[in-house]
Amino acid sequence: MHTTTTSSVNLKEILAQVQAFVETELYPLEAEARGKSWNQILPQLEEKRRRVKELGLWTPQIPVEWGGLGLSVWEFGQVSAVLGQSPYGHYVFNCQAPDAGNMEILIEFGTPMQQERFLKPLLAGEIRSCFAMTEPEHAGSNPVFMSTTAVKSGGDYIIDGHKWFTSSADGAAFAIVMAMTAPAHENKYQRASQIIVPLDNQGFKLIRNIPVMGEAGEGWASHGEVRFENCRVPQEFLLGEEGAGFAIAQTRLGPGRIHHCMRWNGICERAFDLMCRYAVSRELSPGVPLATKQTIQNWIAESRAEINAARLMVLDAAQKIDEHGQYGARVEISVIKFFCANVLQNVLDRAIQVHGALGITEDTLLSFWYRHERGARIYDGADEVHKSRVAREILKGYGMKKLGK
Amino acid sequence: MHTTTTSSVNLKEILAQVQAFVETELYPLEAEARGKSWNQILPQLEEKRRRVKELGLWTPQIPVEWGGLGLSVWEFGQVSAVLGQSPYGHYVFNCQAPDAGNMEILIEFGTPMQQERFLKPLLAGEIRSCFAMTEPEHAGSNPVFMSTTAVKSGGDYIIDGHKWFTSSADGAAFAIVMAMTAPAHENKYQRASQIIVPLDNQGFKLIRNIPVMGEAGEGWASHGEVRFENCRVPQEFLLGEEGAGFAIAQTRLGPGRIHHCMRWNGICERAFDLMCRYAVSRELSPGVPLATKQTIQNWIAESRAEINAARLMVLDAAQKIDEHGQYGARVEISVIKFFCANVLQNVLDRAIQVHGALGITEDTLLSFWYRHERGARIYDGADEVHKSRVAREILKGYGMKKLGK
Amino acid sequence: MHTTTTSSVNLKEILAQVQAFVETELYPLEAEARGKSWNQILPQLEEKRRRVKELGLWTPQIPVEWGGLGLSVWEFGQVSAVLGQSPYGHYVFNCQAPDAGNMEILIEFGTPMQQERFLKPLLAGEIRSCFAMTEPEHAGSNPVFMSTTAVKSGGDYIIDGHKWFTSSADGAAFAIVMAMTAPAHENKYQRASQIIVPLDNQGFKLIRNIPVMGEAGEGWASHGEVRFENCRVPQEFLLGEEGAGFAIAQTRLGPGRIHHCMRWNGICERAFDLMCRYAVSRELSPGVPLATKQTIQNWIAESRAEINAARLMVLDAAQKIDEHGQYGARVEISVIKFFCANVLQNVLDRAIQVHGALGITEDTLLSFWYRHERGARIYDGADEVHKSRVAREILKGYGMKKLGK
Amino acid sequence: MHTTTTSSVNLKEILAQVQAFVETELYPLEAEARGKSWNQILPQLEEKRRRVKELGLWTPQIPVEWGGLGLSVWEFGQVSAVLGQSPYGHYVFNCQAPDAGNMEILIEFGTPMQQERFLKPLLAGEIRSCFAMTEPEHAGSNPVFMSTTAVKSGGDYIIDGHKWFTSSADGAAFAIVMAMTAPAHENKYQRASQIIVPLDNQGFKLIRNIPVMGEAGEGWASHGEVRFENCRVPQEFLLGEEGAGFAIAQTRLGPGRIHHCMRWNGICERAFDLMCRYAVSRELSPGVPLATKQTIQNWIAESRAEINAARLMVLDAAQKIDEHGQYGARVEISVIKFFCANVLQNVLDRAIQVHGALGITEDTLLSFWYRHERGARIYDGADEVHKSRVAREILKGYGMKKLGK
Repeated sequence: MHTTTTSSVNLKEILAQVQAFVETELYPLEAEARGKSWNQILPQLEEKRRRVKELGLWTPQIPVEWGGLGLSVWEFGQVSAVLGQSPYGHYVFNCQAPDAGNMEILIEFGTPMQQERFLKPLLAGEIRSCFAMTEPEHAGSNPVFMSTTAVKSGGDYIIDGHKWFTSSADGAAFAIVMAMTAPAHENKYQRASQIIVPLDNQGFKLIRNIPVMGEAGEGWASHGEVRFENCRVPQEFLLGEEGAGFAIAQTRLGPGRIHHCMRWNGICERAFDLMCRYAVSRELSPGVPLATKQTIQNWIAESRAEINAARLMVLDAAQKIDEHGQYGARVEISVIKFFCANVLQNVLDRAIQVHGALGITEDTLLSFWYRHERGARIYDGADEVHKSRVAREILKGYGMKKLGK
Repeated sequence: MHTTTTSSVNLKEILAQVQAFVETELYPLEAEARGKSWNQILPQLEEKRRRVKELGLWTPQIPVEWGGLGLSVWEFGQVSAVLGQSPYGHYVFNCQAPDAGNMEILIEFGTPMQQERFLKPLLAGEIRSCFAMTEPEHAGSNPVFMSTTAVKSGGDYIIDGHKWFTSSADGAAFAIVMAMTAPAHENKYQRASQIIVPLDNQGFKLIRNIPVMGEAGEGWASHGEVRFENCRVPQEFLLGEEGAGFAIAQTRLGPGRIHHCMRWNGICERAFDLMCRYAVSRELSPGVPLATKQTIQNWIAESRAEINAARLMVLDAAQKIDEHGQYGARVEISVIKFFCANVLQNVLDRAIQVHGALGITEDTLLSFWYRHERGARIYDGADEVHKSRVAREILKGYGMKKLGK
Repeated sequence: MHTTTTSSVNLKEILAQVQAFVETELYPLEAEARGKSWNQILPQLEEKRRRVKELGLWTPQIPVEWGGLGLSVWEFGQVSAVLGQSPYGHYVFNCQAPDAGNMEILIEFGTPMQQERFLKPLLAGEIRSCFAMTEPEHAGSNPVFMSTTAVKSGGDYIIDGHKWFTSSADGAAFAIVMAMTAPAHENKYQRASQIIVPLDNQGFKLIRNIPVMGEAGEGWASHGEVRFENCRVPQEFLLGEEGAGFAIAQTRLGPGRIHHCMRWNGICERAFDLMCRYAVSRELSPGVPLATKQTIQNWIAESRAEINAARLMVLDAAQKIDEHGQYGARVEISVIKFFCANVLQNVLDRAIQVHGALGITEDTLLSFWYRHERGARIYDGADEVHKSRVAREILKGYGMKKLGK
Repeated sequence: MHTTTTSSVNLKEILAQVQAFVETELYPLEAEARGKSWNQILPQLEEKRRRVKELGLWTPQIPVEWGGLGLSVWEFGQVSAVLGQSPYGHYVFNCQAPDAGNMEILIEFGTPMQQERFLKPLLAGEIRSCFAMTEPEHAGSNPVFMSTTAVKSGGDYIIDGHKWFTSSADGAAFAIVMAMTAPAHENKYQRASQIIVPLDNQGFKLIRNIPVMGEAGEGWASHGEVRFENCRVPQEFLLGEEGAGFAIAQTRLGPGRIHHCMRWNGICERAFDLMCRYAVSRELSPGVPLATKQTIQNWIAESRAEINAARLMVLDAAQKIDEHGQYGARVEISVIKFFCANVLQNVLDRAIQVHGALGITEDTLLSFWYRHERGARIYDGADEVHKSRVAREILKGYGMKKLGK
């Protein structure tokens, strides 16, 4: 049960505005963008961003004092599900990963200097950023198993390391980098720190945009493999305390996960809509639409059920975060992370199957999402990792102490 | 989002009381009841019913003016999920099927005479009742395909027909019977009527309690195969209008379905609890509990996710019923009917597998529910029927006219 | 590819005879047996056994020198799949568990005295036997974790312990009991022995026939919970070497598993046949059979695919056993154990769903099998245990040494 | 059971040679080919083709009199499963779709002139071909629902129509085109014919290589959208009888389906191998490989079971084709079509999940297959179509006449 708040009176209007914007401004853009690269479509996206600012809908997830709409997680969840209906939604409203996560931790942990130099232009949409954590040599599921180091030298840190899946590194103005500052610290959760690295640094190299499911992409729509070699940054670019890298990452990942889930729900709704439209219009023989087949009907009903489940669970988790903070909602966050990622894959798979050969072409959005969201069950914690975490948290309540990893 | 109502302040207390009652009064009874028949355990159940009345928790789903707590569907959903944790919960609070459904339609459609004679003792828990609709010769999924007839003769109806899955017929004081009163009516939805039949009638015969998953049961815990032969009842026992049988059945089935879903959620929670308890206490080798196995952890996490989904979806549908009536919530009701029945089966199956050999014995409740709730995917509309219904309702919004059956 | 052998020429005839026997002699018995106990139906079963002996089809799995047909595992697999179509098939041909397994180990490990006294009457069908291994206090998945002990005293063993799921103990003439003879042996696989215990022994007690999925059963059709208290048997009743209990159990379990798989395939074929018959005969409305629904068609096709897969995999594993022995086929045996058990559950579940309400009554065999074969995913090694075993064996080939348990 | 034939003695050697070739000649090529286009890698592929000819392994599926190895379907099934382990296997042995299917129908239905001009260079690997059947405007599941026409004019046919998923049209020397020659024929299965169209024809246009799952490809590795406009070909290019287009298509599709299944089995084996290798080598923490996780073990075991099932079912269907022809094996062919396609998707999905982030990059073959084989459940008959076909064929044996479509 959700208590009515003042802002939620307003929410209905915001949702209606956002829905209208997505349908009238972004859907047409999708067709135009087909076959074009990120940079080719960027001018039009920047134009849309200006429109969003004019409408007063910019950075809806950000506190009012920083220029956003100040929506709660529960409120933003609903906005995000609308934005997710188009691949351009979040970017155009400046609430896209990885920037949104970086905004959050810069607001919470940044020094005034850092906020002035990095946060403000990010909030304004003037620059982009990235977050460099995962390393190809180490399993991402083990966040304390890492090789990148940051060693003090004079007033600087010298960073050396190899990262990948540094999303949107291509063209980003700065990265927030996880690096070992005390690799031998007895508490393994205090070995790493987060350091801001402007990417015009000579010690930084974008090795490649990794081809993900066949597509390397570019600009914001890319996933970088990067290298830091003798990369010097002033110590004042340390984010938060030294040794707090893991703790800040946790702070960042919790909301990051629910933001993904919200966005996936939007994708699901769009795929569901495409599936229904096609089912009633595609004819198996003259006058007999696909929708007359019981198998298609089953898929529509099962998809509706799963999407409803995903939506309600995300909103429920959002409400828990609003009330108890993200640590208090950690079980719910892990539950939705794996549940919603699987719903997403199921719904996209069914929508493609309904479309037949058309479904595997680029003539709908389904193929794009099918490819690009296969990672949903992997990034920010694989299904398996979240399932074990959920079980261990629950079993603690049954008296379990040690449950292995 | 659910608006806070006055009664929901109270709801917390009611839920706490009901939970305490179930755990302290009913859980111990379950162990005692093991291996005993319904009639053997009945005196203790009647004793518990008296306690529930004393506590002021009797017939929570019934309007205050009829002596109940007057809970909304959304509120009762939460109470019901607690009651469902024990096989005796609903009976002891007098909100068990099929009586609860009969109470509802007698309140809505009964004449003062009918209410005095049939409803009041039912509300008081003095008698039991049953609902005779399904016929062995006809597919239950087609509600207008039926052979039982009621022919007028003098001031009476003469009923002839063969019914089965007339749950709780054994020992019931009356049945509400669906019978064709106008078999040739051009509108097939106006061919049948509902008629109240006191079961001391000579024209009524309980052929057998059908062995369901190996168990015939008795009393309330049974499913009758019955026959009406030249069974005369006064015409004033007609419920509602003549020809309104189908419409009243719909009125009865909608809430009936959500009540089942609520109860299943309770079963799921209990099975989940049993699974977790066993996982932490059963040792694979000295000091190594079952809960250390990742497969067990997966099942716990997946079950938690699915139960959360089911619970939120039932409450969401309940709220829609409260706000828009059951017709307005018909898609949601069909969605939860098949979704929750499958969650139930999944969770019970996993809980049994965790218990190993113990899980298939009667030493836990799991076997009982596994057997008796296999019907959940069949009764009140099979999964397949609800899926097609959901799809057709949704596709109407996409312009579909005829979608076959 | 299977090489044609002399006996396989004959096999066709045997299969035709067995199929005819099952259909004409056993199917009619099933209907008669409905609602009757094992002992009530036993005289008719014994009559059928005499017919099988007359036909020369008795104990088909047993070597010719011991009076059987001498079928290879591959050949018997096909016979067994026919026998499995009726719940009485294996019993009537004297190839039922647990006797068939006991015959095998008595042939392989029994002394002449043991064979004379225990094996011969068992082969003749004059007595029944049981196998007491699993203990309620210990996870069955860990075969070396056991409390029952056998201590030498004079020329005897004194056995003390508590066992359950000692199938068919009720009325059995003897049990083969796993007991610790050297609980402190450094090699944990040499701690236990197998000892033959005649059940007229004062130290033996049948505590109860365990209600399994609601049914305690009796005679062969039961699962005993038993106790051995100060139970003395002569040391010459030791089967094989002292300390060889685990090794003999492995010898017994491998074929036991494939025998179950073969039988399940028979159940699947019968359930499939019932499902198809019902689909074409049950009408949704006049002239419109259930089989017109695409969902039903999907289930029929998916069931056909899975049953074909199960059958081919069992025959492939049988051939590997014939050629390389059961150790050489251990991966295939574990694979079919979990694969076929799940196919069985899927097919039974679909067949029930097709039958609707009828499917959960006892009016077809589906409910019986649904209940009694839920254990298939548990007994003789739970799915999870076999999956881990398969993976570990395969990964050894990739250089893995230790993979935990 | 498969009877030993003379050629199967030989088969072992052939399989060993092919396996060695794939591993030593093709695996290294895959790494080189990463990121390169089809035309860039073509010279190396042509070099490999020369090697295959030298080894005497060229066109293994083709009768000896046409220069092939004359393998039976059952034998070729095993060779094909080896070739499928590399994306280049079938091409390099000249048994790739769509050419292999075209070779088959040209051998069976071609005139001497057609065989001289089109078949011989195809068998020699000097040219490539394509098959133009599916039309974007019509559901592929309805093979008699088509708009392309071929009208006689003088000694020519004039073909007009729009086709897509004309695989490998880019660079092909000729197409075999399905076109309506008698659109009003009362027997709808005799309305279409197959006509050979050399693609240097002015009336032919390759509109585009369709981006499939994000990749347009080129040359053999592409799927064309094509248009025939006033496209004249001599009537002697008609394949078989006029009106036999549907019948020939069936002849072509049956083996085409089993060939796909065989190839998928090869992909599955390779993906399984990649999954196992990675599981034992990737460390979760120092010294703890991924393979220690029970979830990973489950996936390995489940994949092994499913691949075994798929392999045995394909070989069983192949044997039925060899013995009874493809019409006699039509149920088995439809069964394996949907079963194997789903096994393929499952195994690829698990292998990707095991690889984590690496699995969605192009650094393994998994992403390539995951994308390009999503179509496996769609092309040559969607799962749903085959399931209904299987059920209807089976239910005919139960007396069903009309089962709708």
